[in-house]
Amino acid sequence: MSRVLVTGATGFIGRQALTPLLGAGHEVHAISTTDAPAWSPPGVVWHRSDLLSDPAGAVIAVRPQRLLHLAWYTAHGSFWTSPENLRWVAATLELTRAFAAAGGERLVAAGSCAEYEWGLQGPCVERVTPLRAATLYGACKDAARAVLEAAAEELGLQVAWGRIFFLYGPHETPGRLVPAVARALLAGRRVPTGDGSQIRDFMHVADVARAFAALVDSPATGPVNIASGQARPLGEVIDAIGAATGRRELIDVGALPPRRGDPAELVADVTRMRRELAYEPSIHLREGIRQTVDWWGERPEAPG
Amino acid sequence: MSRVLVTGATGFIGRQALTPLLGAGHEVHAISTTDAPAWSPPGVVWHRSDLLSDPAGAVIAVRPQRLLHLAWYTAHGSFWTSPENLRWVAATLELTRAFAAAGGERLVAAGSCAEYEWGLQGPCVERVTPLRAATLYGACKDAARAVLEAAAEELGLQVAWGRIFFLYGPHETPGRLVPAVARALLAGRRVPTGDGSQIRDFMHVADVARAFAALVDSPATGPVNIASGQARPLGEVIDAIGAATGRRELIDVGALPPRRGDPAELVADVTRMRRELAYEPSIHLREGIRQTVDWWGERPEAPG
Repeated sequence: MSRVLVTGATGFIGRQALTPLLGAGHEVHAISTTDAPAWSPPGVVWHRSDLLSDPAGAVIAVRPQRLLHLAWYTAHGSFWTSPENLRWVAATLELTRAFAAAGGERLVAAGSCAEYEWGLQGPCVERVTPLRAATLYGACKDAARAVLEAAAEELGLQVAWGRIFFLYGPHETPGRLVPAVARALLAGRRVPTGDGSQIRDFMHVADVARAFAALVDSPATGPVNIASGQARPLGEVIDAIGAATGRRELIDVGALPPRRGDPAELVADVTRMRRELAYEPSIHLREGIRQTVDWWGERPEAPG
Repeated sequence: MSRVLVTGATGFIGRQALTPLLGAGHEVHAISTTDAPAWSPPGVVWHRSDLLSDPAGAVIAVRPQRLLHLAWYTAHGSFWTSPENLRWVAATLELTRAFAAAGGERLVAAGSCAEYEWGLQGPCVERVTPLRAATLYGACKDAARAVLEAAAEELGLQVAWGRIFFLYGPHETPGRLVPAVARALLAGRRVPTGDGSQIRDFMHVADVARAFAALVDSPATGPVNIASGQARPLGEVIDAIGAATGRRELIDVGALPPRRGDPAELVADVTRMRRELAYEPSIHLREGIRQTVDWWGERPEAPG
C-alpha cells in the first residue's frame, strides 16, 4: 500500500481512477481546484489546489509515494493548439521536482498518441515508432516526457508514461465525437459524417482508468501505450452509436469531406500493457457505446 | 531599431552581447538578479528580476519586441545533470508565453550542441543530425526548443535557436577547461590531460555573442549552429594555452584516461550561420587563447 496523489482527479479519466486505486489498497489523495466533489468514492482525501499557480503545494502537503498525474489542458477544440499547453509543461516539471524533493518514488503521467508521428502504417510501438508530433499538444506532451525520463535517475524517481489513444464514456466533453453523435441522434437530429474510413483505437474510459491504476502498481518505466490494440474504422464506432440509439437512419455517411491532417490510421501496439501491466481491457466497444449512450440518454440536452 | 530584452545579461555570453546590440541601434534592456553591474556599457537599461520566481515580470515591464534569452543554469560540474534544468525549461516556457502576450515579435534563445546525438561522424547539421541528448541538460534544452518551435505560429512569434558548441574567453567559470589549464600553467602547476584527440569546435565568446546579436536581427527561424565550423583536436587548444603562457613543458599529455561518454567528435556545420546571418567569426583560436590567457594573468588565483 502506498500514499497515492491523483491530479486531474475530477477529470474524464481521473474520476474513474479513484475506485481502482482504493481497490488496490492505496491511501488515495486527490486534487481539486474547488471543493471535494459530491460523487467522490468514500475514502478519498481531497485537497484544494491549483497546479498552475502552485504546482508544489499539494505534494508538499501530502508527501505521496506515488503520483498519478492526469491533469492537463483539455478544452475541446482548442487543446490541440492552445498556448495553455506550455503552462502545463511548466507545471508538470515543477510538480515532478517538488514530488521528488518530498520523497516521491514513482510518477505515472498521461501521455498521448499525439506524440507519435502520424501517417505511418501499422500500430504505434513504444520506443520504435518515431516521435514527431503534428500538433502543439503532442509536442508539449512529448517534451514533458523527454525531460521527465531524462531526469528520472537524477531525481531518484521511477517515471512511467501512459500514452492514451482514443477514448469514450460517461462525462466526456460534449463536443467530442462520441457524445456529439450520441446526443444528436438521441435528440433526433441528422448527423453528417465523413466516410468513416479512418482507423482508430478506441477504449472505454473506465478501462483506461483501470490501466492507469495498474500502471501505478507496476514496475514498468517509460512509455506504455494505454489502448485497446484493436483497429476499427471510425464508421464502426459511429454505427455502434446508431445501433445503441436506434437511429441509424439519421447518420449521413460521407456527407463531410475528409479533415486535413487527419491520419488514416492511429492504432496502438499494446504488447507492453498486456505483458508488463498484465492488463486487458474488459469493455467491448458495442457494450461500452451502449452504456455511454444510456448515460447521455439520462442527460437530455437543454432546449436550445 | 527594436526594443530588445536580454536575459542572462550578466553571464558569460550575455555580457558580451550588449555592445553589439547597442551598435546595431537597438534600445537594449537587460535583466539582472541584483543591481545594474558597474561594467555595463552606457545606454543599457537594467531591470532587477528573477526569472525563476517571476518569469513574466520583466517582459511585462519592458514590452520588448525582441527577446534574447540566454539565461539558464550553468554551474560547472552540475549543470549536465542538475534538476535545476527542469526549472529553466519551465521558466523559459512561461517567459515566452508572457513575451508573446506582451506583444513580442521575435525570440532568440540559446541552445546547445548537447541536443544532438553524440558519437556520430562528421559535423552536426541543423534538422539533419538526429536529436538524441545524452544528458539531462541537453534533453531540457531540446525539449524547450521543441515546444517553442511548435508554439511559434500559435504565439505569433518568430523563434530562432542558436546552438552553441564550445566556447572560451574572459569571465568563463574557472573550473572549465580553458581557464583551468590557463590558471594552472600561469601558477606554475603541472597539468595532466587526456590524449587530446577529441575533435571539438571552439569559438571565442565575443564571436558567439556577436553571432547572437546577428541572429536577433536576422529573419532566420529554427535552429542555427553558432560555432566556428573548424574541427580541432582538444590537444591543439591545450597546446595554444601552453604557448600563450610559455609553460608548454608543464602539460602532461596522456596522463589522464579518456572520459566515459566523451564523444570523439563534436563539430558544427555552420552553413546556416554563414549564409543566413552573414556572420563569420573574427577571432582566430591562437589569438583568442592569447587574449584569454592575458585576461586570466591579470587575475591571479588567490593563495590556496
